[in-house]
Amino acid sequence: MSNNEDKTFEITFLPEEVSIKAEAGETIMEIASRGHIHINASCGGEGVCGRCQVELRSGEAEASPGLYLSEEEFKAGLRLACRAKATGPATFFIPLESRADATSFKKAAKAEENLTVEQLEPMVLQYPLDMSPPDAADNTPDLDRVTQALAAHNLSDLDVEFSAMKAMPQILRAENFSVTASVYFEPPLAEPDRIPYGRLMSFSPKSDDNAYYGLAVDVGTTSVWVRLVNLSTGEALPAIGDLNGQISHGEDVISRIVFAGKGDGLQKLQSQVTATINGLLKRLDETSPGFRDRLYLLTSAGNTTMSHLLAGIEPKNIRLSPYVPPVAVWPSVRPGLLGLDVPDHAVLKIFPSVSSYVGGDIVSGVLANGMYQRPELTLFIDVGTNGEIVIGNQDWMTCAACSAGPAFEGGGVKCGMRAAPGAIDDFHYNTEQKVNHLGIIGRGKPLGICGSGLINIVAELFRVGIVNKLGRFVENSSPYIRQGEDGAEYLLAPAAESAGDRDVVLTEIDIENLIRAKGAMFSGYQTLVEAVGLTMSDLERVIIAGGFGSSINLENAITIGLLPNLPLEKFSYIGNSSLTGATLALMSREMWRKAQYIRTMMTNFELSETPGYMDKYVASQFIPHTDSSLFGL
Amino acid sequence: MSNNEDKTFEITFLPEEVSIKAEAGETIMEIASRGHIHINASCGGEGVCGRCQVELRSGEAEASPGLYLSEEEFKAGLRLACRAKATGPATFFIPLESRADATSFKKAAKAEENLTVEQLEPMVLQYPLDMSPPDAADNTPDLDRVTQALAAHNLSDLDVEFSAMKAMPQILRAENFSVTASVYFEPPLAEPDRIPYGRLMSFSPKSDDNAYYGLAVDVGTTSVWVRLVNLSTGEALPAIGDLNGQISHGEDVISRIVFAGKGDGLQKLQSQVTATINGLLKRLDETSPGFRDRLYLLTSAGNTTMSHLLAGIEPKNIRLSPYVPPVAVWPSVRPGLLGLDVPDHAVLKIFPSVSSYVGGDIVSGVLANGMYQRPELTLFIDVGTNGEIVIGNQDWMTCAACSAGPAFEGGGVKCGMRAAPGAIDDFHYNTEQKVNHLGIIGRGKPLGICGSGLINIVAELFRVGIVNKLGRFVENSSPYIRQGEDGAEYLLAPAAESAGDRDVVLTEIDIENLIRAKGAMFSGYQTLVEAVGLTMSDLERVIIAGGFGSSINLENAITIGLLPNLPLEKFSYIGNSSLTGATLALMSREMWRKAQYIRTMMTNFELSETPGYMDKYVASQFIPHTDSSLFGL
Repeated sequence: MSNNEDKTFEITFLPEEVSIKAEAGETIMEIASRGHIHINASCGGEGVCGRCQVELRSGEAEASPGLYLSEEEFKAGLRLACRAKATGPATFFIPLESRADATSFKKAAKAEENLTVEQLEPMVLQYPLDMSPPDAADNTPDLDRVTQALAAHNLSDLDVEFSAMKAMPQILRAENFSVTASVYFEPPLAEPDRIPYGRLMSFSPKSDDNAYYGLAVDVGTTSVWVRLVNLSTGEALPAIGDLNGQISHGEDVISRIVFAGKGDGLQKLQSQVTATINGLLKRLDETSPGFRDRLYLLTSAGNTTMSHLLAGIEPKNIRLSPYVPPVAVWPSVRPGLLGLDVPDHAVLKIFPSVSSYVGGDIVSGVLANGMYQRPELTLFIDVGTNGEIVIGNQDWMTCAACSAGPAFEGGGVKCGMRAAPGAIDDFHYNTEQKVNHLGIIGRGKPLGICGSGLINIVAELFRVGIVNKLGRFVENSSPYIRQGEDGAEYLLAPAAESAGDRDVVLTEIDIENLIRAKGAMFSGYQTLVEAVGLTMSDLERVIIAGGFGSSINLENAITIGLLPNLPLEKFSYIGNSSLTGATLALMSREMWRKAQYIRTMMTNFELSETPGYMDKYVASQFIPHTDSSLFGL
Repeated sequence: MSNNEDKTFEITFLPEEVSIKAEAGETIMEIASRGHIHINASCGGEGVCGRCQVELRSGEAEASPGLYLSEEEFKAGLRLACRAKATGPATFFIPLESRADATSFKKAAKAEENLTVEQLEPMVLQYPLDMSPPDAADNTPDLDRVTQALAAHNLSDLDVEFSAMKAMPQILRAENFSVTASVYFEPPLAEPDRIPYGRLMSFSPKSDDNAYYGLAVDVGTTSVWVRLVNLSTGEALPAIGDLNGQISHGEDVISRIVFAGKGDGLQKLQSQVTATINGLLKRLDETSPGFRDRLYLLTSAGNTTMSHLLAGIEPKNIRLSPYVPPVAVWPSVRPGLLGLDVPDHAVLKIFPSVSSYVGGDIVSGVLANGMYQRPELTLFIDVGTNGEIVIGNQDWMTCAACSAGPAFEGGGVKCGMRAAPGAIDDFHYNTEQKVNHLGIIGRGKPLGICGSGLINIVAELFRVGIVNKLGRFVENSSPYIRQGEDGAEYLLAPAAESAGDRDVVLTEIDIENLIRAKGAMFSGYQTLVEAVGLTMSDLERVIIAGGFGSSINLENAITIGLLPNLPLEKFSYIGNSSLTGATLALMSREMWRKAQYIRTMMTNFELSETPGYMDKYVASQFIPHTDSSLFGL
């Protein structure tokens, strides 16, 4: 019977060799996503970012070159996964740079992202209220009737949202007194045994799927990520992100704080970050239609400055001595007051921060990585312009922020750039043929060097003897060494072979900046480890978080002395742990409470004021370190 | 020494013969007020209502005739107490109609108004926070510092008002970390032992007097009264009132509900009553400058409809069968959401109501009169268009609303009018000379008959045999009986002697209306008393509340059968008990909790559905009653 004929076929993805059933017309991205193979989709699958390139290895798919693919690339098999539609069986290879949150750890762990909680018990719960409609024998007032129905769920003394009360007479009658009540519970922090304050947020018609939502938000200085969670099932949807709209007012937190202090700067920055989140909400409207009316809870994790800017709280004392953030433990906030396009009754929970520079994103990251409840001595690092470090286990934790500078983000580097198409992110040097092999994001011509590329290039040049312990080029060791306008430099690609109109080079000053950055991080680990009387070799686990971490080559990072010299199996990459922690707190008020506990567990070190830090920093200004024994040399 | 010379002199007030020390330039009203002699000041003492007329009996005062006094009246000694300024010793007589809340009970109790509570513990408390400013050794975040300071007051897990958090960094530094914190506590109702939910409302600079305020509001269908209370001392300022701005949309609750159902009627009514309250707040700005920034708490008592209209909640189901008010027990409301000009952080507590027609004003009245905690069997009545009745004691209470109609307010009466200047409010008939003696509010010419006048006229005419048991004029009993266009009528004042251009008359139809109204009340008392197996003679106290109650002549009210025939010493007049109860709840969260308890104690009777009520009503349609034994006849 032709009606029952199986119209599905298989699409195979490499290198995993995973085959997924598909139907004609589905996009390659949709099919991959169903198989938990996450392809980069910065633009939300709208064909405008070009970051989801995949290679057609066999079979066919409906597609055209478009904006991001040249005719040659198209002929070579490149396709945008979000635009290409399946027509029949086919095989695609997904290159590393097109993976959403894959790791480029070549010999180490894959990203570990645990998005489930022991018990699904969000801060917002829904209750069915099935009441008998009033009649002459029972003219109990509406709200009393609701109170009685809530008492049947063992709920009493609930506060009532004004808007819910106002809408109540109409909705109760429209739904014949059978509705869903959403109730917010405020987890008590100081006295956990106290009965939580509860508030009836709204009444809604009963739905077939009982779905209601929470939104986890990671407010980064550079980018903002959100993840929608169905709070009735615990299902977490794929994260989507965008650049933080504040980026035009400075790339780091200090410049944002300075801008906030000028005129209406604070309001501007607040409205820019809320506009970014509102834009992400709009994208979710398309993938999860109707979610917004059912959105009740938001969690937000960000560094201390980002949290203040989101809330619109004057941040200047964060950076003025004695570095007093206005708020560390945040009360509940109404997201509508901040300018977020969400229902008035929604509640925003902002992650607590530890200090001016160890923020809610790190607390959330610790919640996500679980080190606070495990016995192993763990080093948790979030590498970035501000690198944050946490060392500890279930009994204690210390933390610190290192001012690494922008080298890891490609900043302060002559040909530095973000990890975007055209960035050199991998490098091999053929010592026999004396030839540079460049790994380039997007497979086009080289445009510059991104952070991970910088590490990989310097590590390879050090290994082959072109760069020495001091970070200087070894004379006559390679034909590409030359004197540039800023001193000695190494030619990676001449202008003729580059995507820009200049030579792509690595300068000695670039190497100095990298050494300064990695030294700031390494001396931070050392300081925290020694503060509790331990040594680096006592570390049992190293967990790396953050976007940058996804593209670090572990061996190279150890080679230059950014990561401690430990067996590779001790390392793991955890992805955007700030967003993961925010997701877990959405699902479980116990997790939210644990976040507060984590914050109180963490002892903050101001490195610049910690005895011995400066000595360690100076000693770290070598490749890999002045104390070679730390690196088994 | 001339500097120490005593410049004060005495002003004496009659009929009390109270003498009060005064200085030149003080108004007579200010002086009287200091002696707790309250003179009518509807306009707030601005000389524009003319209701504070007093008679200068000896001495002098600085004054001029003005708008409300003719040259003759001025020459006769009449003065406006709010305008006349003391110049030296003088004696004033204060006529009944110029007394603010005095009683005209001629042989009964004075108004009893208890404005003190056992323990001053409002729902909002202020705490001094004396924190050490941050320094390098202690860079605790601002809000943590506040949390620690609150913990010293045994406060934990407080929610924090967003606006307080936003203003915090600035005010802490401006005040060098020594501020006052205002905290709201939500009294738990279902589980009184639960630790109350607390919210830090705001930070304020420390003040010399520590004054902070609450506002009690009585939202009546006709008029709105407010009373400002200093919550730090418990001092209650004199009440001020105004007509409810909704009055143009109907005089009774039914017509307001009907209007609310048309187009934007609900919004209009809400904004009219809030405008009335806002107007009263403006008057308080002048007498208590600066109070508004220190206003934290409002309590509001009103009938069920008025509470819904104030909150802007659709009231139509109050009057549609099966008479289900949306809300009886009100959650906290933000008064700013309703349009009241008060700080955003202020909280409004609305008194709970018992049923569609026994509202928060009656619950508040019971709180004020204390019958819920006394052993005596008490009848509490609030006479008005809707007369409410409560009968009971510390063990039980029953209540009902009687649809008395507008006769007590001067409505449905041919020459009826409000109790305003020109209204006949007292009446004597000289049987020998056959002459009418009229008592007229404002001492001018008669314009009409107010509610208390109607009672006094009918009672006197009944006593002298001009009106019979059936409420009919006895033929030839008086020369003033004649046939008018509506049937038999009694000429009180011919047009030539009246302030209007028509005869002022009392018709038989007027008497019928009065009998219907008083009968509705009386059969209500009987029904409630008999429902618990008692009789009227078991009543040990009768407490009368409401504006109308202040001018009732007890003997006359008993004569016509409006009040039960009990010894006069059992009666007391309690003034605006709705406002008094709201005042007590401002001062004490325990009193607020008691209001909720009172509400649950009260069993509501729908009289029209109570067996026997109609029979009693029919039997009451006589003067005083068909069962004369009830009145000792």
